[in-house]
Amino acid sequence: MAEIKIPKATARRLPLYYRYLQFLHDGEKKKVSSAELSEAVKVDSATIRRDFSYFGALGKRGYGYDVDSLLTFFKRLLNQDHLTNVALVGVGNLGHALLNYNFRQTNNIRISAAFDVDPDLTGTIQSGVPIYPMAQLKEQLRAQQIDIVILTVPIEQAQEITDELVKVGIKGILNFTPLRVNVPDDVRVHNVDLANELQTLIYFLDNFNEDGTLINPLAHDPLFN
Amino acid sequence: MAEIKIPKATARRLPLYYRYLQFLHDGEKKKVSSAELSEAVKVDSATIRRDFSYFGALGKRGYGYDVDSLLTFFKRLLNQDHLTNVALVGVGNLGHALLNYNFRQTNNIRISAAFDVDPDLTGTIQSGVPIYPMAQLKEQLRAQQIDIVILTVPIEQAQEITDELVKVGIKGILNFTPLRVNVPDDVRVHNVDLANELQTLIYFLDNFNEDGTLINPLAHDPLFN
Repeated sequence: MAEIKIPKATARRLPLYYRYLQFLHDGEKKKVSSAELSEAVKVDSATIRRDFSYFGALGKRGYGYDVDSLLTFFKRLLNQDHLTNVALVGVGNLGHALLNYNFRQTNNIRISAAFDVDPDLTGTIQSGVPIYPMAQLKEQLRAQQIDIVILTVPIEQAQEITDELVKVGIKGILNFTPLRVNVPDDVRVHNVDLANELQTLIYFLDNFNEDGTLINPLAHDPLFN
Repeated sequence: MAEIKIPKATARRLPLYYRYLQFLHDGEKKKVSSAELSEAVKVDSATIRRDFSYFGALGKRGYGYDVDSLLTFFKRLLNQDHLTNVALVGVGNLGHALLNYNFRQTNNIRISAAFDVDPDLTGTIQSGVPIYPMAQLKEQLRAQQIDIVILTVPIEQAQEITDELVKVGIKGILNFTPLRVNVPDDVRVHNVDLANELQTLIYFLDNFNEDGTLINPLAHDPLFN
């Protein structure tokens, strides 16, 4: 089979497109233009057209895209036709909030197990999810065929627990700790660094014009001369 | 003054560099190579050298970068020499978790006010942060000189509350709701879409080889022929 390369930035936008198409489908809308899509998902329409062209979905001028075909296509592309079980490790404040977070809203993802070291938590069910002790990590992940973990442990434990996860065969980690953990090449880590997100927003507000020009060009700072 | 353009991807990595430099500084380390930086922040060293070159920081071959100079530089670039107050709107599960989240760990950011509609919450202090009723939004944001808000309200209220925030002069929104909210051009929204993050990770695991090649080329699907 021929292989195609699509940019990672395109891949990151796919869930967004998918979710909005699901929304249109639920509202019994039959077609959508790239302009409408653009307005809804806040991606410019030229980018949308380019993204879709990677998949051979070109739309028809003056008609737009067929919602059901696109939805069926993205559903298969994103594996939305089967449920993915994931686990959460570290049931602190953020872990608790994520157990409550509705990942299933328009995604076929379910947190089916959580792990913690606190004996007051283990053996209980929180927001519908059973909390297991760390000692049962291997056994439960295997039994539930889980290979993706949401990591919400304290930063001090992040590397040690990542090593354990790798040892039991985890393939993907959604890392909420500020530590950039070390993993082998065949394990994928996706970092969600909340402090970083906030700082980046502040930085952009303080320093950038709308066109991406730096407002305060410290580059001409004597420090580096 | 001359202006320079730096790519947004570079700007997004700055807080990461800054935080690691702070860590090195705290450990009394005097110099760092791009290879060491690369290993710690998980960005390849060619990218690091290119990023730094935008700011005129070129390092010396066989010596690397001077930690203190770089740190001072990034501190000023990222405005870390002054404290930024932000507000949080919507004290549900995720909002609570973020109030507890240590944004100050290595960043000079503080959540100094939170807002909610629940009369049982307003007037209380949660994790050290006072909770105000929505009616006091304008007054408190002005009094505390806050122009950045973390938005953790239910999706149904997201647009309405965004409109209120825009009306009272908010300039930046860290949006945790899955809705892509509408704002005027001069307001910056940074989306942290947790379901999207998880789905993207799953998608990459299922579909991509290490080199970015799509494993399952649905592009050749008869659907679009």
